[in-house]
Amino acid sequence: MAIEDILSELKKKIEDALPSDTTISNVEFEGPQLVVYTEEPRKFADNGNLVRNLAKNLRTRIVVRPDPKVLLAPEESIEKIKATVPEDSVISNYYFDEDVGEVIIEAEKPGLVIGKHGETLREITKKVGWTPKVVRTPPIKSRTVNNIREFMRTNLKERKEILKTVGRKIHRECTSKDEWVRITSLGGCREVGRSCFVLSTPESRVMVDCGVNVGSDENMTPYLYVPEAYPLNQLDAVVITHAHLDHQGLVPLLYKYGYEGPIYCTPPTRDLMALLQLDYIDVAARDARKIPYESADIREVLKHTITLDYEEVTDIAPDIKLTFHNAGHILGSSISHFHIGDGRHNIVMTGDYKYGPTRLFDPAVNKFPRVETVITESTYGNSNAIQPSLKEAEKNLQNIVKRTIDRNGIVLIPAFAVGRSQEVMIVLEEAIRKGIISDIPVYLDGMIWEATAIHATYPEYLNNDLRKLIFQKGQNPFLSENFRSVDSNELRRNIIDDPHPCVILATAGMMNAGPILDYFKAFAPDERNTLVFVGYQADGTMGRRIQKGWKEVPLPAKNGSDMVKMNMEVEIVDGFSGHSDRKQLMDYVKKMKPRPERIFTMHGEESSCIDLASSMYKKYRLETRALTNLETVRLV
Amino acid sequence: MAIEDILSELKKKIEDALPSDTTISNVEFEGPQLVVYTEEPRKFADNGNLVRNLAKNLRTRIVVRPDPKVLLAPEESIEKIKATVPEDSVISNYYFDEDVGEVIIEAEKPGLVIGKHGETLREITKKVGWTPKVVRTPPIKSRTVNNIREFMRTNLKERKEILKTVGRKIHRECTSKDEWVRITSLGGCREVGRSCFVLSTPESRVMVDCGVNVGSDENMTPYLYVPEAYPLNQLDAVVITHAHLDHQGLVPLLYKYGYEGPIYCTPPTRDLMALLQLDYIDVAARDARKIPYESADIREVLKHTITLDYEEVTDIAPDIKLTFHNAGHILGSSISHFHIGDGRHNIVMTGDYKYGPTRLFDPAVNKFPRVETVITESTYGNSNAIQPSLKEAEKNLQNIVKRTIDRNGIVLIPAFAVGRSQEVMIVLEEAIRKGIISDIPVYLDGMIWEATAIHATYPEYLNNDLRKLIFQKGQNPFLSENFRSVDSNELRRNIIDDPHPCVILATAGMMNAGPILDYFKAFAPDERNTLVFVGYQADGTMGRRIQKGWKEVPLPAKNGSDMVKMNMEVEIVDGFSGHSDRKQLMDYVKKMKPRPERIFTMHGEESSCIDLASSMYKKYRLETRALTNLETVRLV
Repeated sequence: MAIEDILSELKKKIEDALPSDTTISNVEFEGPQLVVYTEEPRKFADNGNLVRNLAKNLRTRIVVRPDPKVLLAPEESIEKIKATVPEDSVISNYYFDEDVGEVIIEAEKPGLVIGKHGETLREITKKVGWTPKVVRTPPIKSRTVNNIREFMRTNLKERKEILKTVGRKIHRECTSKDEWVRITSLGGCREVGRSCFVLSTPESRVMVDCGVNVGSDENMTPYLYVPEAYPLNQLDAVVITHAHLDHQGLVPLLYKYGYEGPIYCTPPTRDLMALLQLDYIDVAARDARKIPYESADIREVLKHTITLDYEEVTDIAPDIKLTFHNAGHILGSSISHFHIGDGRHNIVMTGDYKYGPTRLFDPAVNKFPRVETVITESTYGNSNAIQPSLKEAEKNLQNIVKRTIDRNGIVLIPAFAVGRSQEVMIVLEEAIRKGIISDIPVYLDGMIWEATAIHATYPEYLNNDLRKLIFQKGQNPFLSENFRSVDSNELRRNIIDDPHPCVILATAGMMNAGPILDYFKAFAPDERNTLVFVGYQADGTMGRRIQKGWKEVPLPAKNGSDMVKMNMEVEIVDGFSGHSDRKQLMDYVKKMKPRPERIFTMHGEESSCIDLASSMYKKYRLETRALTNLETVRLV
Repeated sequence: MAIEDILSELKKKIEDALPSDTTISNVEFEGPQLVVYTEEPRKFADNGNLVRNLAKNLRTRIVVRPDPKVLLAPEESIEKIKATVPEDSVISNYYFDEDVGEVIIEAEKPGLVIGKHGETLREITKKVGWTPKVVRTPPIKSRTVNNIREFMRTNLKERKEILKTVGRKIHRECTSKDEWVRITSLGGCREVGRSCFVLSTPESRVMVDCGVNVGSDENMTPYLYVPEAYPLNQLDAVVITHAHLDHQGLVPLLYKYGYEGPIYCTPPTRDLMALLQLDYIDVAARDARKIPYESADIREVLKHTITLDYEEVTDIAPDIKLTFHNAGHILGSSISHFHIGDGRHNIVMTGDYKYGPTRLFDPAVNKFPRVETVITESTYGNSNAIQPSLKEAEKNLQNIVKRTIDRNGIVLIPAFAVGRSQEVMIVLEEAIRKGIISDIPVYLDGMIWEATAIHATYPEYLNNDLRKLIFQKGQNPFLSENFRSVDSNELRRNIIDDPHPCVILATAGMMNAGPILDYFKAFAPDERNTLVFVGYQADGTMGRRIQKGWKEVPLPAKNGSDMVKMNMEVEIVDGFSGHSDRKQLMDYVKKMKPRPERIFTMHGEESSCIDLASSMYKKYRLETRALTNLETVRLV
């Protein structure tokens, strides 16, 4: 059946289901959802169950949009909206978009604009005709969030066209009689870095993650050019599990090489992703390294991104439904659940996950409606990779900081901008507030501040405790005065030239680039200082070399490289990791509901992937295997 | 480097290597070989080592062709050739082709035209300028061989263009820095039928076999449309291991779907392949079944076929060399050895093979310069699939025939046109000649005679004993007067209407179609008759059903189907199989030189493939696995 016929059939079904006095003017697909245009948006708003029941019956997501002619003028609408929502929601901005009949309301407390079960939103529609959408005013000013929102607003027309194309592709008819499901590994198997998989059926192909291996020039890129992925315009969708570069660093490259389809991820992943991609090409340019793509490609990613919240079941191809679940690894990180065909097969791609509580997040989800195949990360898959508890880790860090400050030293902590930095910030803030360590400045360099602002924009993605602290008690730990954003070269120079006891959190997390190297160069020779690793250091990175005990470290300099003498103390504080340790990996599968049939391991050193696969086979009697790059496995 | 530059570099190298008084006018690739054009073909002919040394130094196959202006007129040339070759070579035809400067000489004894180390050929070149090529006059008139030879002659110009394109593609420069090798199974794994694999590297893709599953409508075709194979014009080459339909039945389909490259196989495989393909679409048309391709597609196959003899190492892609070795299964069947890159990896695809001597062939070759991965058939891979010896089988068959004849019955033997038929013919001929069974007619129906003629055309592909018998002792068993070709419907009607003790060998071998069904319908109800299975009956075929003991058999008829009462005796004579039995499969790998690293099993029922893989792992401690359809395995 042609897509036009599918649409008119849907229109008829909707008309039949509506009360006889309600009419609709058009229906159209827009990404995964069906948009229903009506001259009577108020009637839909009157009846909260109408759309819900329609969506349930048609098994698709439905959005109702007003016909442009029934919209109140913007100025008038603002007055009416102001009169409708409680004052303490603190609305900071309104953006009207006639093309989609939407008004975007930016408020400090979005919940108050939404109301119970969306009551207030429906009230607004009834009064002004526009469909209201609510976003949070970032409590810490975030350049990234502001830029992305503005970019999306100025590109609404093009974006609408993209969504229409995507929507019609998703809802095309299935034609094949075959029923197989295959998965191809293009990167990130028996290694950490360049994660990339392609899930395929006779109907569709979906890429999951597209990372860059920052620790290796030679094996930097996934094997994108093999026929299961290439030509890229044959992919139906690209799904990104979280914003770390080893999972998404080459997404812009896909557009450069001809991909034209959508990117699915959570809203925080989209923002963090843009931040990290821009930084990635900046750093590469500064180091005169090969830059795989331009900022124009990053803008293409944004234009094509469709964000999904946790637990939203979404059609992303004619025979594939995607649902994101909390992964507990970093802000917006997700376990991706794929439901193939009508119950044919269910696959869980874990991405990176933490099956245990942290300061920031709830433990990863491992309960699903159905699951047969699990593809799990194995970073700490080795049987000896048991990590200390978070409590121990926190105590350990506090002691190191105290000791170093006491001897007039500086604590240098390399960290990913996203994840461990915020975890460590919260620990330090509490320790200072409680007087456990003295009142020293904590410098945040290289996007850590910006990433923190994004965290504050999406409190729904933090755990309950933290959310309460920030929004109910008004105690935002990120706003502590001890935190100083290093937002100029001058300030960085000052810190280096006039050393004083402090903690410096700086990127990159594996010391392969970024401001951390400036600090390291300055502070490494002095034995009073301490370098503290709080995250995983991949093979081939500078961080790993230092962990191995190199006494002289070559750092890139203008003419070749400088040798830096290592006299500073080196400490590894395990337990902060956003990854599950060995026990948590084993437990995640053991306690999974329902019990899966087959486990594939990936994202770990070769021995870790093999050890984990073999242990799960022995203990749980499941079919297991450590995937290798470049293989295609048939699942059904 | 562009291909033109590669060619002019080669030309320079050749000129440098030649004596100063020898000049060449041009060089060009033609399929896997390099053609050197010269106005002085006689000088090259003078020096037998010249070309051999050139080929060795340049690591490529070289052919020298005369410039057209130095060729003697055809009439004059024939006189000179006649004067040069011994009379008892019995030349039956000459074909001159000015485009390539070749004269094709058809002779009853080609060896005498070639002379020791090609001496006589060089003598001919010196006298006439033309490059002589020698083919055997079929000792039994073969329509197939004649038609193919004529077709090739009339399409020489187009073929030359094809070979040039293929040649330039083979010799293109390698550009990738990656070095992986992968194999994809598209059919024939954990099943018998539709064998099809794709071998791929970053540079090239080669398909091995492209069979049809004659026993199944639903799973008839390999999964050709998966991205590792499709679009088909990305394949560099298609290699056919032997002529049975389950290995080559869909090769013409490849051209219908856009493939434009070469087919590599042995000369007898090419002829048998055309014969069986034409028969396949004929039978399908008669049975009003779906016909996947037309005879025009079969002609495309012929135009694109490049034949290779056993042991000829040949470049088929920039980084892949192919060598065929005797497989002992049917005429022209081969074990395909692939050498990838410069020693990167070596793969043996066995196709079907017999690791033991038969009346027709030597045992399959299992000695190679190098081998890491073996992909072996598993038809009799089950640990209980031990076959009786050929001697026992022959005795068994003789007894059944004697017994049936004695009770005035008819012996009906379903057989593939190619393979078992000729084996059984030789056994029967000997038994009649020696008086072990009485002097009865042996009817050959459904292409068996034609296939036998092709066998006689290629004695180099039979074993030594048979070759000697035919050509030295002049005792061609195939020419026995007991053999009667059923070459008309009338004769077939006569045999059925006027039954008399005889043996009838008829196709198809698994009783899914063909004249065997006419005989079966007529003779099944009479208990004096005997049905003898001498070959493997795949799941889903009529033969398998009868073996299972069905007492009433539905046969396709004009209006629906007729039920045939089964009263005739049914015998299974094991031991004639062209497949290795379990012990031979195990021994083939055990005695392989050098010892391989990894064994994959295919081409057998699921339990056979798994059993064989697991036994080889346990006994030989090699990495083994029973491949499944639709997976891609990385070898390096």
